[in-house]
Amino acid sequence: MDPDVPLIVPQVNAEAIKTMKKNIIANPNCSTAQLVIALKPLHDLFDIERIVVSTYQSVSGGGKAPMDELIDQTKLFLENKSIKSKNFTKQIAFNAIPHIDHFTDDGYTKEELKMTNETKKILDKNIELTATCVRIPVLVSHAESVNVQFKKPFSLEKINEALNKADGCEVYDSREDGGYSTPIEAAGKNETFISRIREDKTNKNTINLWIVSDNLLRGAALNSVEIAETIIKYNLHGK
Amino acid sequence: MDPDVPLIVPQVNAEAIKTMKKNIIANPNCSTAQLVIALKPLHDLFDIERIVVSTYQSVSGGGKAPMDELIDQTKLFLENKSIKSKNFTKQIAFNAIPHIDHFTDDGYTKEELKMTNETKKILDKNIELTATCVRIPVLVSHAESVNVQFKKPFSLEKINEALNKADGCEVYDSREDGGYSTPIEAAGKNETFISRIREDKTNKNTINLWIVSDNLLRGAALNSVEIAETIIKYNLHGK
Repeated sequence: MDPDVPLIVPQVNAEAIKTMKKNIIANPNCSTAQLVIALKPLHDLFDIERIVVSTYQSVSGGGKAPMDELIDQTKLFLENKSIKSKNFTKQIAFNAIPHIDHFTDDGYTKEELKMTNETKKILDKNIELTATCVRIPVLVSHAESVNVQFKKPFSLEKINEALNKADGCEVYDSREDGGYSTPIEAAGKNETFISRIREDKTNKNTINLWIVSDNLLRGAALNSVEIAETIIKYNLHGK
Repeated sequence: MDPDVPLIVPQVNAEAIKTMKKNIIANPNCSTAQLVIALKPLHDLFDIERIVVSTYQSVSGGGKAPMDELIDQTKLFLENKSIKSKNFTKQIAFNAIPHIDHFTDDGYTKEELKMTNETKKILDKNIELTATCVRIPVLVSHAESVNVQFKKPFSLEKINEALNKADGCEVYDSREDGGYSTPIEAAGKNETFISRIREDKTNKNTINLWIVSDNLLRGAALNSVEIAETIIKYNLHGK
């Protein structure tokens, strides 16, 4: 990450766009974008100390070829034919692969380290984050199981209230059959959906969440459009 | 859970079978069984304080009907036909559903609470565990992303050594393309596979792991056979 290139999610750190020095702005990683959109309002209220996140990422994070391959592999599987993976290290149809991007020396993948580093850059450098990034046989939308420890005491009522009014967020959480968002439902929508909000009684000031968003919109196209709108808003174009 | 009915994973708590009072022994939940098999050798060495687990569970945990339905839904999806879910609260084909078993008042599902309570009963009542249980479109084998905090300092070398020689465990972890286990590969095997073993630098004495096991074998049939063998070993049959 180049310190002179701001990494922008307009709902979270629009002001940082003014630090741009090279007329270059970066889109964050898709799994980071939806995480910080949902956690920004909670960080403002209760000061996040540490995040443990496990992702359920769709194949479209890798482009169109892996989407086509998931469909092709699925057809081969249903026909009992042998499968050779091209865009994945192993079969993705009816499987889960705990590996996205390259491995680094300490055993983490670059995708996992990006979640740590980008969350620090966009939200707050004092936030600790450890990630496990997993590819699952879903075409569009990433889901995330997130354990969040705050520095301050929280209430679930205030969390719901803050998320409900936060720009880009929608709470979908009724603690009953179907009362939560899933990747299929989030696909094609601009919002980041937050479900399964509950207190984690095993640790002080801690909650669990389930966050789902269309990775092609929130993680890429929509975020780019919103960055462009922010440039216009701040009258930075042509400078 | 009836306190007079021991919950047995022979590799972990075979001796507890002697506490049986009603000639009834229970098989633990499949997601708990593979977790305690992998964590017992580490608990013996470094004393586990708290576990944060997110599961990637196959549909066969619910029996044959959900397996058939996943195949049927997948075919309908590929043919662009509409899908009505029967054994799932939402579409499972190309999706992920953060809900297994019924919801309880505090927002957790029974599956999640079972992981907490059964881990305490089988391994150690002092271990804290918070879970998020998710169904994914996989036919057989459950995977788990596990963050484990120990009370004592650990070394990755000792963890690898302990897991490599533990009964029922196999380390599959080479930090390179394909150097980890996945559900498809674990299906049909007796071992519980442990991959992606790495230090979590955001917290004291903490690691991340990826645990995969055939839920029909480890979580059910194989465990039952091993319980029967334990009964014979302790000469408890007919008593």
